[in-house]
Amino acid sequence: MRIDQRKNRIEIPDSSPDYLSVVDMGINTHQEPVAYMRRDCHICLAEGFAASSRISLSYKERSIIATLNVVDERVLSHGTIGLSHIALQRLHVTPNSKILVEHAPVVTSLSAVRKKVFGQKLSDDDITRIIEDISDHRYSDIEIASFLSVCVGSRLDIDEIVGLTKAMVNCGKRLHWPGHTRVFDKHCIGGLPGNRTTPLVVSIVSAGGLLIPKTSSRAITSPAGTADTMESLTTVTLNLADIQRVVVETGACLAWGGAVNLSPADDLLIRIERALDLDGEGQLIASVLSKKIAAGSTHAVIDIPVGDTAKVRTHKEAERLASLFTDVGAACSIQIRCVITDGSQPVGRGIGPVEEARDVLSVLQGSAGDLQDLRERALFLSAHLFSLANGESLERSLEKSAEILDGGKAWQQFQRIVNAQGGLKNLPSAKYQHIEYAQSEGTLTAIDNRQLARLAKLAGAPSTHTAGLRLHVRLGDTVSNDVPLFTLMTESTGERDYALDFYRQQSSIFTIEPKCGDNSDE
Amino acid sequence: MRIDQRKNRIEIPDSSPDYLSVVDMGINTHQEPVAYMRRDCHICLAEGFAASSRISLSYKERSIIATLNVVDERVLSHGTIGLSHIALQRLHVTPNSKILVEHAPVVTSLSAVRKKVFGQKLSDDDITRIIEDISDHRYSDIEIASFLSVCVGSRLDIDEIVGLTKAMVNCGKRLHWPGHTRVFDKHCIGGLPGNRTTPLVVSIVSAGGLLIPKTSSRAITSPAGTADTMESLTTVTLNLADIQRVVVETGACLAWGGAVNLSPADDLLIRIERALDLDGEGQLIASVLSKKIAAGSTHAVIDIPVGDTAKVRTHKEAERLASLFTDVGAACSIQIRCVITDGSQPVGRGIGPVEEARDVLSVLQGSAGDLQDLRERALFLSAHLFSLANGESLERSLEKSAEILDGGKAWQQFQRIVNAQGGLKNLPSAKYQHIEYAQSEGTLTAIDNRQLARLAKLAGAPSTHTAGLRLHVRLGDTVSNDVPLFTLMTESTGERDYALDFYRQQSSIFTIEPKCGDNSDE
Repeated sequence: MRIDQRKNRIEIPDSSPDYLSVVDMGINTHQEPVAYMRRDCHICLAEGFAASSRISLSYKERSIIATLNVVDERVLSHGTIGLSHIALQRLHVTPNSKILVEHAPVVTSLSAVRKKVFGQKLSDDDITRIIEDISDHRYSDIEIASFLSVCVGSRLDIDEIVGLTKAMVNCGKRLHWPGHTRVFDKHCIGGLPGNRTTPLVVSIVSAGGLLIPKTSSRAITSPAGTADTMESLTTVTLNLADIQRVVVETGACLAWGGAVNLSPADDLLIRIERALDLDGEGQLIASVLSKKIAAGSTHAVIDIPVGDTAKVRTHKEAERLASLFTDVGAACSIQIRCVITDGSQPVGRGIGPVEEARDVLSVLQGSAGDLQDLRERALFLSAHLFSLANGESLERSLEKSAEILDGGKAWQQFQRIVNAQGGLKNLPSAKYQHIEYAQSEGTLTAIDNRQLARLAKLAGAPSTHTAGLRLHVRLGDTVSNDVPLFTLMTESTGERDYALDFYRQQSSIFTIEPKCGDNSDE
Repeated sequence: MRIDQRKNRIEIPDSSPDYLSVVDMGINTHQEPVAYMRRDCHICLAEGFAASSRISLSYKERSIIATLNVVDERVLSHGTIGLSHIALQRLHVTPNSKILVEHAPVVTSLSAVRKKVFGQKLSDDDITRIIEDISDHRYSDIEIASFLSVCVGSRLDIDEIVGLTKAMVNCGKRLHWPGHTRVFDKHCIGGLPGNRTTPLVVSIVSAGGLLIPKTSSRAITSPAGTADTMESLTTVTLNLADIQRVVVETGACLAWGGAVNLSPADDLLIRIERALDLDGEGQLIASVLSKKIAAGSTHAVIDIPVGDTAKVRTHKEAERLASLFTDVGAACSIQIRCVITDGSQPVGRGIGPVEEARDVLSVLQGSAGDLQDLRERALFLSAHLFSLANGESLERSLEKSAEILDGGKAWQQFQRIVNAQGGLKNLPSAKYQHIEYAQSEGTLTAIDNRQLARLAKLAGAPSTHTAGLRLHVRLGDTVSNDVPLFTLMTESTGERDYALDFYRQQSSIFTIEPKCGDNSDE
């Protein structure tokens, strides 16, 4: 439509030039590009723009859609347009560049979103157009929020999830592994604080000869994603060439997927999912599988923890999700094996990027100590990958995994990977460490994973790598007023106080049941 | 939570003052308050704020939630915080006021929104908390978008709609009419361009002795709402006292509901509905009835036009909606009568605030001419109100309505109302008027109401009152290349060209079928 408009304009003598000179407003509007124009700007008047209009900005061959903020005369001089950081970045312009400003083109895929909003099924074509427009940044945040909100729960059927997965793969880059017919991957659907098995599993199975080019995401709704944890240990922002090099060199990598655009649409969806604290089944499957497929994987093991306060609450639900993963995988030609695990309490002791990294190092270095749960879970998942690879029994595969870990081969392999990615960093410690004690005596019978994760997030995780907490208790432990439950780690007093306020209002995070004895004494 | 935080802070020696000095950024961010803080601001660092964080701003007893934009050092000096227009307005502050800046409190009703997102039913309490938080501006735009998107279609059951209606009434102001046991109202659910019967019906029935304190909304997804149309004729932004005065004086009013906060939550929802072009059944009913109830109405007639391209497409759908309206009304003690009308083509000839106002005046002044459809529809709806009021037959009530309109009593009454509201304005004409002719010969067999409405909106309606179009044809008319289909009205060439580009791409707005004769000639 833009071209037509230009043509028409040229025919119209009284039409005014639509080029404005760029000004850097020095404003960070996060991912939504914002343009600032004078209320009396001739283009605002000519085009009928108003605050929050969606407008099109073009420079050379590139054009983006931005949200308009109208500013007072004093803020900008005539003939100029202010841009936020992300707008400057996406449009590839510098101050004083002359850009073309027009009505945003009608984004036709939005009618498909409306279809879904009203409960109709989306066709592959609908989904492809929606995902293309989202990855081309044509959607506003509220439009993405609307799309996500009507796709969660079980509102996407298997055809739609397959379509979404393929669309996400097609709009991004892809990795290829010439000479390898089988490429492996693992994933945990999350919901369990501290469950940081990936660096362990990747080290174990690649030490065992499997090719596993692992790209991980940052946290979506949790206090830490594998990418956040690995970033506290080494460089995870690798480009495709780096990943190829590291994998060819070591048979594995532990990189951040977001940096290589394997699924650009997914990264945009995840930002809004995080803001809305949504994590829908359909997107979950499409998000996970699209990245595995884009990474060139042919086989993957998926860890589904089940627990009252985990992401998946019942076995029935887990089995449903597992069969969806397997079916969608099959439709997208990737072999999936789902493993349903215990999700009743956190894994390991650390929660938050740095604290989880500490646990990973301890297990790798053979000093698991009170981290047996993390160690065993990593061995279990590695075993499943081995048996998926060579058809051996789980028992034999478990032995093999344990030999590799206990023999120090996994630790050597982890160091090779980390060195190939830029070397091992020293782990910093949080500036403020607050020890919280139990308020009553008895047995710890339940831990609310969600509230505990929220507590770690309020402490600043994952954006502050050292923020989070370290658990000192496990289910079944006997506690009393002098027993520390956890140490809260923060870099600021504001976050510490805010997190503790929240904790004190959530009596339900730790359930402590008095011993029968205590009662009979009375 | 804020108070706790303050308390804690006082106990913490190293905590820094959380008061910043206000700067007017001169930026209009529409309805979402935005705060601008330096990247290195001590509060950003202490509290761990980042771009797009939700933060709480407090001044005296008032506090609001705003979205944070982080700015470069050069933009603001230390110790200051920039606010957008709406933030300054809602917080009631002026530059240099010292405001408290903190983490936004956890908005607990969002967990209820998540419940609905995942398909669960909302309790009255859930709905009450959601609506209270929305009307207190605690929701971000994407949060409102998420809530709306999962409530459209038939996703709200009758209990939820009743709960939503009551919640909307309770969070706003209410009008009372002492001495009147019966108060009347009318509403059209829309979807039919030009269907501007309200000013006519209000004049007719109030001239006939019914009390009808009419408050109308602005356009949601249409090119004009009654409030937009009336605003081109007189003052519609009346406060409660003005409305009381006008109604006591004349027995009626034609005011904009948004100005009197009758349903503040609804006004905030409608803004996002408009941006997403959503108009859900549940919100529709709650939105309509909450305003009627808040206006003190006891009886209302609701016009439901049915047509292939109207908001309601089938009779079945209309009957379903009608019974929902009636049942929800009964549960909220307001008597509703729904009238299902023809929605196959626009009503009257004008589309857009000013052009629709012209039609209203013509009918009132007894020169209906080619506006018989508008005239008859107004008489029909007035008759239903009269028969609802006094139980008389529809025939008798139709005669009575016609007498009042044809006898000039309605016009006199309209003038009394308008004078009480501030006097009658002269209608301006659009700066650019483009006549579009038919492209082929034959009979006009269909008009796409939605596309026609979109065309008028692209021309600038409703925000530009003179923008829109004037139809020159009706279904069944014979047209040829020299027959004008419509005149497009715009105030800018940009909008004219954009609208015409759209029209030329939408061959489907007018369906012209060649006469059989034309074919047999070949």
